[in-house]
Amino acid sequence: MDRWVEETLHGGFRVRLKADKVLFDSQTEHQQLIIFENKDFGRVMMLDGVVQVSTKDEFVYHEMMAHVPLFAHGKAKNVLVIGGGDGGVLREVLRHPDASRATLCEIDGSVIDLCREHFPEISNGAFDNKRTRVVIADGTKFVAETDERFDVILVDSTDPIGPGGCALHEEFYADCRRALAPGGVLVTQNGLPFLQASELKQSVGYFRELFEDAFAYMATTPSYFGDAMSYGWASDNDDLRQYTVGEIEWRYAAAGAFPTKYWNPRVHVAAFALPNYVLDLVEA
Amino acid sequence: MDRWVEETLHGGFRVRLKADKVLFDSQTEHQQLIIFENKDFGRVMMLDGVVQVSTKDEFVYHEMMAHVPLFAHGKAKNVLVIGGGDGGVLREVLRHPDASRATLCEIDGSVIDLCREHFPEISNGAFDNKRTRVVIADGTKFVAETDERFDVILVDSTDPIGPGGCALHEEFYADCRRALAPGGVLVTQNGLPFLQASELKQSVGYFRELFEDAFAYMATTPSYFGDAMSYGWASDNDDLRQYTVGEIEWRYAAAGAFPTKYWNPRVHVAAFALPNYVLDLVEA
Repeated sequence: MDRWVEETLHGGFRVRLKADKVLFDSQTEHQQLIIFENKDFGRVMMLDGVVQVSTKDEFVYHEMMAHVPLFAHGKAKNVLVIGGGDGGVLREVLRHPDASRATLCEIDGSVIDLCREHFPEISNGAFDNKRTRVVIADGTKFVAETDERFDVILVDSTDPIGPGGCALHEEFYADCRRALAPGGVLVTQNGLPFLQASELKQSVGYFRELFEDAFAYMATTPSYFGDAMSYGWASDNDDLRQYTVGEIEWRYAAAGAFPTKYWNPRVHVAAFALPNYVLDLVEA
Repeated sequence: MDRWVEETLHGGFRVRLKADKVLFDSQTEHQQLIIFENKDFGRVMMLDGVVQVSTKDEFVYHEMMAHVPLFAHGKAKNVLVIGGGDGGVLREVLRHPDASRATLCEIDGSVIDLCREHFPEISNGAFDNKRTRVVIADGTKFVAETDERFDVILVDSTDPIGPGGCALHEEFYADCRRALAPGGVLVTQNGLPFLQASELKQSVGYFRELFEDAFAYMATTPSYFGDAMSYGWASDNDDLRQYTVGEIEWRYAAAGAFPTKYWNPRVHVAAFALPNYVLDLVEA
């Protein structure tokens, strides 16, 4: 008997992934987790009925979340990842030789353990890197309380806030701004604009109140079904998303021109070219 | 009882769309057709288990198939659409005032009739436009036999060839080249690179043998689940995909700067910025 695992994220459609082999299926303290093998997507982790990561296309999301802000910033030394327990964003951050310290703050330590066991190629040694510090804590509390200042903060989380209303969201982003060094940049996972328009509109609305520059960029991760993924973008330096392909090429060369599967300097610049229906959500 | 309509295109996953109301469900001479209403995608047409068009996101595919080659060409007068029986690509072609003649060649006349009845807003009068000519015929025969020369040929078809092997594909593209006026451009629907890599690789391989310039561009249509859609690009004029945002803005203004929901001059240029995993398929 074939087993199919259904995603239950959206009202009008359901995606069922064929589980050729189930490797893990359990309820942790915080969430419902299943890990299985799939022909099209490789090894897949689903959390509470939503695809979190799959080995064949994780490169899109992880490269685009890390390299766009890091190459835009150009000299990020201290980087904070909130969420991201699979280690994929951390892995890409560490490919930047200037990033001398990378802190990963994950609420659920068991996600890290499970991913290190079942998805070792995603973190690929990142948790053992000397530049890495892992903090098991609620990211909202961590940014509210930290005295450190980060050049780049990456929010790689299904929902960075957990249960709570709009005031909590705005407070979290205000705390992120406080925790950024001057000229720093905040990037957030902001869902699929076609299906979750209000998420992007609301986040960028908060960014606009708090930061000099508020925008978004996009990339299509195949296993996040139903649109390209939007990343929220907030900074007090509005030069950061204006660089030309030539400037980004120069920074990429200076960083050692490491191999990538999705990101390249042209894709970097193109990611900020938003379709009109997304511009309508992002612009005031 | 809810009815869910399943897409059966890919081996490793299935998408089920909730049919809030079924409007049409039948086997035509050529294909199995169902039309229904869906919360996320609006009115949806599925053909042989594959989503063909849906009213809430059709603007992406239709704008990007028409405006990218037409603005790149800059002075297209005679345009051929092969397939496209819903009339969406035709509608966008006709928004270009320079396009004095648009021929739509569709193999199955009943698709046009059904779409005019159930999706009138997609063709939006395009079939009644004086510049439009409709030919009910096999597109491969039409391009093989026509004496006309087209500035732009758009292949808007699930499979432009029907049953047949590689030799037939190459012959069809060679016939398209013969039917293009000097400096003309051929654009084809080329599937989702992540899931259908060989389709894009093969088509662009043929283009490279036949044309001076062979490439692709991309746009994400939400209801084509599993990656951004690739469009094949072939021309003997390799300037056509090198224009700057400024040049495309100028052409757009000259065409009357008609409103769009996806395409804009920045998106136009960005669509050719292919991720590395797609470049690997497109470059020799």
